Amino acid sequence: MPIVTLTSDWNSDDYYSAAVKGTIINRCPGASVVDITNQVPSFNIALAAFQVKHAYRHFPPETIHIIAVNNASDEKSMFIALKANNHYFIGYDNGIFGLILDSDPEEMVSIEFAGSGTFPEQSAFAHAACEIIINGKLSGLGKPHKDLYKQVLMLPAIDESVINGSVAYVDSYKNAITNITRDLFDQIGKGRTFEIFVQSNHNRIVRLCSKYSDSSPGEMLALFNSLNLLEIAINGGNAAELLNLSLNSSIRIKFKENK
Amino acid sequence: MPIVTLTSDWNSDDYYSAAVKGTIINRCPGASVVDITNQVPSFNIALAAFQVKHAYRHFPPETIHIIAVNNASDEKSMFIALKANNHYFIGYDNGIFGLILDSDPEEMVSIEFAGSGTFPEQSAFAHAACEIIINGKLSGLGKPHKDLYKQVLMLPAIDESVINGSVAYVDSYKNAITNITRDLFDQIGKGRTFEIFVQSNHNRIVRLCSKYSDSSPGEMLALFNSLNLLEIAINGGNAAELLNLSLNSSIRIKFKENK
Amino acid sequence: MPIVTLTSDWNSDDYYSAAVKGTIINRCPGASVVDITNQVPSFNIALAAFQVKHAYRHFPPETIHIIAVNNASDEKSMFIALKANNHYFIGYDNGIFGLILDSDPEEMVSIEFAGSGTFPEQSAFAHAACEIIINGKLSGLGKPHKDLYKQVLMLPAIDESVINGSVAYVDSYKNAITNITRDLFDQIGKGRTFEIFVQSNHNRIVRLCSKYSDSSPGEMLALFNSLNLLEIAINGGNAAELLNLSLNSSIRIKFKENK
Repeated sequence: MPIVTLTSDWNSDDYYSAAVKGTIINRCPGASVVDITNQVPSFNIALAAFQVKHAYRHFPPETIHIIAVNNASDEKSMFIALKANNHYFIGYDNGIFGLILDSDPEEMVSIEFAGSGTFPEQSAFAHAACEIIINGKLSGLGKPHKDLYKQVLMLPAIDESVINGSVAYVDSYKNAITNITRDLFDQIGKGRTFEIFVQSNHNRIVRLCSKYSDSSPGEMLALFNSLNLLEIAINGGNAAELLNLSLNSSIRIKFKENK
Repeated sequence: MPIVTLTSDWNSDDYYSAAVKGTIINRCPGASVVDITNQVPSFNIALAAFQVKHAYRHFPPETIHIIAVNNASDEKSMFIALKANNHYFIGYDNGIFGLILDSDPEEMVSIEFAGSGTFPEQSAFAHAACEIIINGKLSGLGKPHKDLYKQVLMLPAIDESVINGSVAYVDSYKNAITNITRDLFDQIGKGRTFEIFVQSNHNRIVRLCSKYSDSSPGEMLALFNSLNLLEIAINGGNAAELLNLSLNSSIRIKFKENK
Repeated sequence: MPIVTLTSDWNSDDYYSAAVKGTIINRCPGASVVDITNQVPSFNIALAAFQVKHAYRHFPPETIHIIAVNNASDEKSMFIALKANNHYFIGYDNGIFGLILDSDPEEMVSIEFAGSGTFPEQSAFAHAACEIIINGKLSGLGKPHKDLYKQVLMLPAIDESVINGSVAYVDSYKNAITNITRDLFDQIGKGRTFEIFVQSNHNRIVRLCSKYSDSSPGEMLALFNSLNLLEIAINGGNAAELLNLSLNSSIRIKFKENK
């Protein structure tokens, strides 16, 4: 059963998502379309990339991921399809694939799009997904695409004893997920004691929890989450609101200096 | 694989939608239920009709569309099922089908409903969908229904050089989609120069774009969209908010008079 | 076709729901995952229980219901799976199953969970659902679980002529659904005349409607709904807002005393 996922900045009160699903199951009966989310804030490719990056690997190999979020002008040449890590992706060549993928795609084509208009996701993207389902390959969609426009994730700045990171995502529970990986923490920290400053010197954490319940109710805490990213939370509380955290808020870790 | 779509004014935090889906897949294993939207504003049949009108054609022939939005009192006799353009529709005879369909239905029955209560969508509508799936026809559901209650879409008022239209829908990106079709524009305009007044004489557009990127960032623009309806947008901005547009806001086009 | 439902307090703009769906269809191709709702307010097990309680019976026997709402600390031992009324349930042993089920489960196991981290729903719950699909039984998941932690629904207080109930749920239409059943009403009332006081002595209802349209537009009304629960509504209006009703608001019924 072929699987297609859909990520967009359409809200769930628009018919756009249904039109794409209808188009796909009309041409490819038996295909199943699963929403990753249709509630990305308008034009926000960084948040769309975060959602897709952490969801796509859980789907079966050869799943086709349509990503209908664009922050650039809608030029025909921007529609691309690519294969990476044995998954297919269809979207705009607007930098988003550099944010989603850790390595270069194995194959890329530009989607030749006969139609026109303001809703290419229904015409070009759904069409491309069906072509991939039917042919099992990208090559019928258009010419090879050479230069992928890549945006790169904002990475923490580091020196010998400091990691200057930032908030990459605020989740449903209003926990703030940072761009600081466990690997980076271990590599810079080398087991030293540390202080984590959440946005200001007033909010200071000096230990890591392994789960939320390792802290007291109402306590601010830090842990490495299921994505191996440092997460700032408040046990039973709304960290983003109480600590005034949002995308790109500063998270600074200072390790004890070697003397 | 039989397909059923669901459109309602239940929010996605209610169990109503799941109860309808469960009822259908319980009786018709293998059926697939796809949401068009469950976030129509309460009782708003005009917006529900807009969503269904523009989504349903993308689904396979013989898809069954359940529309659970009613603005009238819940009389038993109001449940109907009909066939039009080779799709099935189940809903209330409250005027909505005049808004969705461009032509008369090929067949209509009233749904004979043994149950009672405040949740007929689960009992009567899901039941009717299963009957259509199992029997492949409407006729087992009840007696032929004769007089469809039709509301009609608010159409633009026209004279030789003026189209007085209105906003029919505000989409996810806060673009204002009007009830002015490309055909009407061409028929009245006959290629003449024109001014489009968006709600007041202060907001004036004198050309059509073919895509959003034909305008400058921040510029107010007009284009015919994928539905062939005139759409008012602001490149990279929120047109509905910045121009104070909502359902039924006035959009007036004045063509240069012939002398 | 195996069916899994998903109920959570993730919002639909998070990737968590998609990660769980992907994990299930990756391991169990052909399984179908249906959302009950992913918009339970954070940590609110009472509202999650209400949704699941009234939705699950509509699904086919042997459907697996994942409930990812927890208000307690995330201890490993809390993951359980159980079978009741020929449906399977997977969730936290946090009291919620006492709110959902009317009788004791037929079978219960604790889920042995090798992984770790902050997202057990993806690792432990999706894994457990697949094991149930593949093996058709609970017993491979872990040891029998003995003592279910049960919270109980807040029930009305009663005496010979009074029922003191409360609002259990506010639905999409802002109708207030109470915890007063038709059975209780009949048992205490014995056909006597009555007054229903909605939150205060100022809001008084003295008859039952059988449907919304039995009242005048704008009129406050009471009826027993499709769940056989007393519901307070305003015909065409927003009862919760106009009457200031929310979870646990008082609904008092006074029957005429026998003399």
